[in-house]
Amino acid sequence: MNAPAPRPLRFAVAPSGFKESLSAREAAEAIAEGLQRVVPDADTDLIPLVDGGEGTAEALAAATGGALHHLTATGPTGVAVPTHFALLGPGARGAAGGRAAAVEMAAVAGLSLVPPDQRDPGATTTRGVGELIRAALDFGARRILVGCGDSGTSDGGAGALQALGARLLDADGRELPPGGRALARLARVDRSRLDPRLADTELLVACNPFNVLCGPQGVARVFGPQKGASPAQVEELSAALERWALILARDVCGPAVALASATPGPPPCATPAPAHATSGAAPALALLPSSAGGVDLRHGPGTGASGGLGAGLAALGARLLPRFDVLLDGLDLDARLARADLVVTAEGALDRQTTRGKIPAEVARRAKAHGRPVLALAGTIGEGAREVRGAGVDAYHGILPAPVALAEALGRGREFLADAAEAALRMILIGTRLAGAPGRFAPPAPAPTPPPGPGRLVPLPGPPAAPR
Amino acid sequence: MNAPAPRPLRFAVAPSGFKESLSAREAAEAIAEGLQRVVPDADTDLIPLVDGGEGTAEALAAATGGALHHLTATGPTGVAVPTHFALLGPGARGAAGGRAAAVEMAAVAGLSLVPPDQRDPGATTTRGVGELIRAALDFGARRILVGCGDSGTSDGGAGALQALGARLLDADGRELPPGGRALARLARVDRSRLDPRLADTELLVACNPFNVLCGPQGVARVFGPQKGASPAQVEELSAALERWALILARDVCGPAVALASATPGPPPCATPAPAHATSGAAPALALLPSSAGGVDLRHGPGTGASGGLGAGLAALGARLLPRFDVLLDGLDLDARLARADLVVTAEGALDRQTTRGKIPAEVARRAKAHGRPVLALAGTIGEGAREVRGAGVDAYHGILPAPVALAEALGRGREFLADAAEAALRMILIGTRLAGAPGRFAPPAPAPTPPPGPGRLVPLPGPPAAPR
Repeated sequence: MNAPAPRPLRFAVAPSGFKESLSAREAAEAIAEGLQRVVPDADTDLIPLVDGGEGTAEALAAATGGALHHLTATGPTGVAVPTHFALLGPGARGAAGGRAAAVEMAAVAGLSLVPPDQRDPGATTTRGVGELIRAALDFGARRILVGCGDSGTSDGGAGALQALGARLLDADGRELPPGGRALARLARVDRSRLDPRLADTELLVACNPFNVLCGPQGVARVFGPQKGASPAQVEELSAALERWALILARDVCGPAVALASATPGPPPCATPAPAHATSGAAPALALLPSSAGGVDLRHGPGTGASGGLGAGLAALGARLLPRFDVLLDGLDLDARLARADLVVTAEGALDRQTTRGKIPAEVARRAKAHGRPVLALAGTIGEGAREVRGAGVDAYHGILPAPVALAEALGRGREFLADAAEAALRMILIGTRLAGAPGRFAPPAPAPTPPPGPGRLVPLPGPPAAPR
Repeated sequence: MNAPAPRPLRFAVAPSGFKESLSAREAAEAIAEGLQRVVPDADTDLIPLVDGGEGTAEALAAATGGALHHLTATGPTGVAVPTHFALLGPGARGAAGGRAAAVEMAAVAGLSLVPPDQRDPGATTTRGVGELIRAALDFGARRILVGCGDSGTSDGGAGALQALGARLLDADGRELPPGGRALARLARVDRSRLDPRLADTELLVACNPFNVLCGPQGVARVFGPQKGASPAQVEELSAALERWALILARDVCGPAVALASATPGPPPCATPAPAHATSGAAPALALLPSSAGGVDLRHGPGTGASGGLGAGLAALGARLLPRFDVLLDGLDLDARLARADLVVTAEGALDRQTTRGKIPAEVARRAKAHGRPVLALAGTIGEGAREVRGAGVDAYHGILPAPVALAEALGRGREFLADAAEAALRMILIGTRLAGAPGRFAPPAPAPTPPPGPGRLVPLPGPPAAPR
């Protein structure tokens, strides 16, 4: 007589933060609140996600039992800003036995630190990122994760390298001013004064593999406009970054890269080419190798992360890793998505960029690998949002209840998101009843299971583990 | 081996128009377009609905094979406006064998005809409504349906009565100027010159029974502010309409009302009280009957329709009918909702007013009587929208994809509505899969079946059918 008691509905709530409105945790809590209004006894698993950008250091410190260290460093416009990095917990030690740290580039060179009237991506600098890395080294960190995303810079990581001791010189041997635009005058890089601790430090860069430094999909062209560049500035910057990649490969690429290089050809770039190292004359760039150690600094996956910071750090021997492999796998994400009846993800905006490595697309890809239905909510449904269906999102919807200005939308994000989650679940529940209706019908096929994620990066190999 | 082929999904799409953006038909087409993107072979039944307000005359002309007649009449601010009424098709003849017509009050006295800087509900007039009724009589109409809704007036129908021959006199026997505010000085109404054709004409008023003329829920208090009245103006108007109701009951109420009166007491109001009819002195209002012929002009259902036009026409013997009984039943609406797997309704705004007799609530009530699930979409989810769940709406959602200004939302209504319908259906289909998931769960109960609709109006009985 007694059927087994039905088990509660299981939700996995795995949103990104909503920029300038909600942290990932706040977003997850808002969604859960809305869902629970409809199904109070649901088993709701909150999985707030970061992508390397804003909030990453704090999230990683919390996840590893570490702590944020606060300090002042050079901001993107050259003005000192209060910032922080994370000293990770004891479970996350470096390869050489040192502590591990996480540097969030957005915390010191993020777009939100660039006043709107100073948005000139040719001028902003990642110097602060290098300063944070040095500070982490000072604290004994020998495994440093650099989170990319939400950057306000396009200097190819030039500023970071300068802060770490590299000298960027023009044809007259004078140090270049900050910013990507100045790289058009770069003649050579002197790496002789690089911080020696880098040699036994593992640098990991959590980056979006879709971002590349050069070419039609390069950072200057894809992100320059949203960082404030005019079309002419985009082209100027594009050419400067092209030059930067070539000279980086020739003058800077770290010993690990050199050692790992299996391709015959140009001499390991760790050795400065003597000809112009003495003369100071600009090299004939067309004749230079465009890759170093088998890794293409111009078009390699992730080289364009955070305005090219990926390329700059890769030249120092950093390993560019798909950000979700670095940031999500510790969360046991796949298993948690697999056990959910419904996966809910969210982001401030769903648009064409979403499928290029953003959190909702990654969540959908992983959920779909387990056949789980995926709902995505967003403050803005933008151009190209439709493409997320191909990434495995079954349905998406905006959260705005009425015509509102952006400021109001940002300020009331939590309320709007909770209400939208509630509304969405009520629609979904209509469907559960529809399925049980007496009339039979053929429901259409669900969103296709997307192809496997982007090809895994072939990271620049890290330094050999130090003997203990 | 062969199971019977599944039948296609059936949708009933029964929206209102979106004010200043989409007609009901355009809204229905937009929703259908969105649904068909997801389920191309669905059986989609378009049932655009009007509620007596904007678009009603056109919709009824189309539905009955009639035609719109265009003319010029007095607009709400006293300036002549181009307007129209519907001569209904031959299937809709009047009780006395004459033609039937439909007068849409919004077409001549609607809020959209009042420039924002002239929104003074104490001054606007329904004179044009009376002119349209006269024009319909000129065309031989002897059954005239007056559609209420979207009005820009609060004169209790005083202007309409004036246009039909009634004289509204102050204590000195001078005719009052237009507008509800002037009714504070009304001493008596002279009905001796009323258009004699009204005696053998059936006047039907399609109104929202929730709207009453006087008291705390009276038109001045509920709608005055949105028509542009200040708090002081609201109170002034409220008192003027109170006086209007009492004098109407005494001086005007039609012979049919008088004949139907079963309650002993005051003499039939068809007979002017001789005392002040000759003296012109203001009556002692507290002593006057507040009802006429058993119908309470102050609090009776529908008396507040279109700023009190309901009360004014009721005093002439018009029957106040629940608008949906008049406007929807000819559509075979109940049967069409009953056969749908999913009912989709929509309106420009879902808010507290929705449950007070708006289209989505009526559609939901009827759909729920057949156990059909109901989805409602709206441009604005406003204060009190939550209450529509109690009216039988299972889920509702806003249609805006991004922070936009009202003007853009109105201009892109069709696109937004189609996209929202698509998104909603995709969510619903997640639910059909959820129901089929291997894990069992207990879905929550659907929205409750609402109580039966508002008590049917006890209409003022119409004139006896003329002998043929």
